[in-house]
Amino acid sequence: MTPAVWASTRVRRTPFTPRVEAAGVVAYTVYNHTLLPVMFRSLEEDYWHLKEHVQLWDVSCQRQVEIRGVDAARLVQLLTPRDLSTAEAGRCLYAPLVDSRGGIVNDPVISKLADDRFWLSIADADVGLWVSGLAHGLGVKVEIAEPPVSPLAVQGPKAEELMARVFGGAVRDIRFFRFAWLEFAAHPVMVARTGWSKQGGFEIYLDRPDLGVPLWDALWEAGQDLEVRAGCPNLIERIEGGFLSYGGDFTLEHNPFECRFERFCHLDRPFDFIGRAALEEIAERGPARRVMGLEIAATSLPGCVEPWPVTVKGGQVGEATSVAVSPARRCGVAIAMLDRVHAEPGHGVVVSSPDGELAAVVSDLPFPPTSP
Amino acid sequence: MTPAVWASTRVRRTPFTPRVEAAGVVAYTVYNHTLLPVMFRSLEEDYWHLKEHVQLWDVSCQRQVEIRGVDAARLVQLLTPRDLSTAEAGRCLYAPLVDSRGGIVNDPVISKLADDRFWLSIADADVGLWVSGLAHGLGVKVEIAEPPVSPLAVQGPKAEELMARVFGGAVRDIRFFRFAWLEFAAHPVMVARTGWSKQGGFEIYLDRPDLGVPLWDALWEAGQDLEVRAGCPNLIERIEGGFLSYGGDFTLEHNPFECRFERFCHLDRPFDFIGRAALEEIAERGPARRVMGLEIAATSLPGCVEPWPVTVKGGQVGEATSVAVSPARRCGVAIAMLDRVHAEPGHGVVVSSPDGELAAVVSDLPFPPTSP
Repeated sequence: MTPAVWASTRVRRTPFTPRVEAAGVVAYTVYNHTLLPVMFRSLEEDYWHLKEHVQLWDVSCQRQVEIRGVDAARLVQLLTPRDLSTAEAGRCLYAPLVDSRGGIVNDPVISKLADDRFWLSIADADVGLWVSGLAHGLGVKVEIAEPPVSPLAVQGPKAEELMARVFGGAVRDIRFFRFAWLEFAAHPVMVARTGWSKQGGFEIYLDRPDLGVPLWDALWEAGQDLEVRAGCPNLIERIEGGFLSYGGDFTLEHNPFECRFERFCHLDRPFDFIGRAALEEIAERGPARRVMGLEIAATSLPGCVEPWPVTVKGGQVGEATSVAVSPARRCGVAIAMLDRVHAEPGHGVVVSSPDGELAAVVSDLPFPPTSP
Repeated sequence: MTPAVWASTRVRRTPFTPRVEAAGVVAYTVYNHTLLPVMFRSLEEDYWHLKEHVQLWDVSCQRQVEIRGVDAARLVQLLTPRDLSTAEAGRCLYAPLVDSRGGIVNDPVISKLADDRFWLSIADADVGLWVSGLAHGLGVKVEIAEPPVSPLAVQGPKAEELMARVFGGAVRDIRFFRFAWLEFAAHPVMVARTGWSKQGGFEIYLDRPDLGVPLWDALWEAGQDLEVRAGCPNLIERIEGGFLSYGGDFTLEHNPFECRFERFCHLDRPFDFIGRAALEEIAERGPARRVMGLEIAATSLPGCVEPWPVTVKGGQVGEATSVAVSPARRCGVAIAMLDRVHAEPGHGVVVSSPDGELAAVVSDLPFPPTSP
């Protein structure tokens, strides 16, 4: 029997939980002290539907750490090797946060609301404590808060059509990783063209919990002929899309180069950030490991609840941390951290699953598209 | 149907999980990114057993934040209003951590391993990020880490007898909130007379994951005639015992006086800690709210998954955040944060549960013992 998830005030429900439960969620995880649905029908059914239609995702667990004040821009820049100096308000920037050793503290999307006001849409860790500790220690003038913002993602190829029906044609003008303030129920909400899938879509940063059910219902009703369904980040699709999960695929023990975040590390530009010296040293000698995909010769696999060792000729060369079976590829797909010498597409490796040893081939991330 | 908990590498299993699952855990929560069992048979059965016999609790989710180095003692003292200056190595100290506004960041048990080495056994929040941010900002010389320590609690009136059988008579000499290093399988482990129940017992801070199953099995076998069982922090017992749950009963929005932690706030002693000015101001004017118990006129209640409003004459005066039915009292018991004027034992209030309005009486915390 699979143990149930236990509800309590410590593990927060969301403004959308009543609709998520009515839609028949079968499993939750807990993410940032908040319930996150992970499956509705089956991973496979949810996967195909996401790639063909449109889904509503309760990603309220993507909490916002708000940083504002006269020193906000300086502090936010200190947090990340990504150069934020040229970003105007209205941008969303995926940005690894690193500590003084170059270890990754989190990988939020940073939304620049104004020159002195930012939201960090965080992965699963209490980034607010990191930022508050730094702010106190450095004596900078900022206010740090977690506003009652609950993101609802609308993802899938029909997402733009559905959003346009509820928010008007202006959504079509929002560019990738940009946001605009649009009205719902006469209340302005932030709408961004972002989301944790490769199928396109938006995230609605709802800051009025009382509007959660009305917003869900409006999208639901407007999307009936688009076959709208309740969904959630899909394990198979996100592995194929190369979306790394903080805390699972990478942690404070990994640096941005191991995670292939080079394009977010602007070491050549002369701004100050925490961990610069460490990252420069790692960039100089090259990372010891690299995150890669794996195609595993298997058509069914157990869940990966602890890292699976990856070996070559009996010697461990890494570990797989997220694993699923792709119905599109008809094989297993995985995200794995591998020693650099083996982190090359086409290399043959062996994955030690609880069901035994399985042959696998290293793949790029995201996985190359399948031929139709 | 109750949704299942979804396993992944992000939500950590523990060295004891195989035995917890073999013992028939029926529900988990997630605590510090780690599985925490919450029920085995039923809340009531688990409750009576805990009060009569001995249980093994997988509380690996109580992660240790290790702080060591030349500035460790100074930094740890900065974190808390509790005066640590007279504590010798071998002490465990329950201590609220506060931020500059006096809000509670966490309420760990601080174990002093040496003059320059501490473990913070944390409640559900990433305290390591808070401490690391402070250390970086202040420029103090410490190393901060999360060692692979997985506490196993042995709780209940027969705990001392069981522990003595496995660790020898030396456990009997360990005083309340003290620890000693004792051997298991020729490996020294930290054993403390602590735990999240009022039934007495110990916590074993196991730092060798490979010894998790052997340790569990040794206690299990030695405890057969003591009716040892798998258990976990019990909702009913911990409400009656007045154990507050961080993130559920109190958060960063509460200060130590609201949580009745005065005895851990040594404002009259002249040491430096973060939040001193804020706490002095709150102490001066008195806290606006106080945490109290409630006895609710009900013999069955739904789970409290969102705070339940507490009212007097129709006006809200607080909220209940943890609720259960006590088989010993034959009524509902709750932990509630109440406006100060109503935070007096004997006051009558009304609790708005999802099942309707219920009469309740304010109680002290811990609840006074029931007559036998």
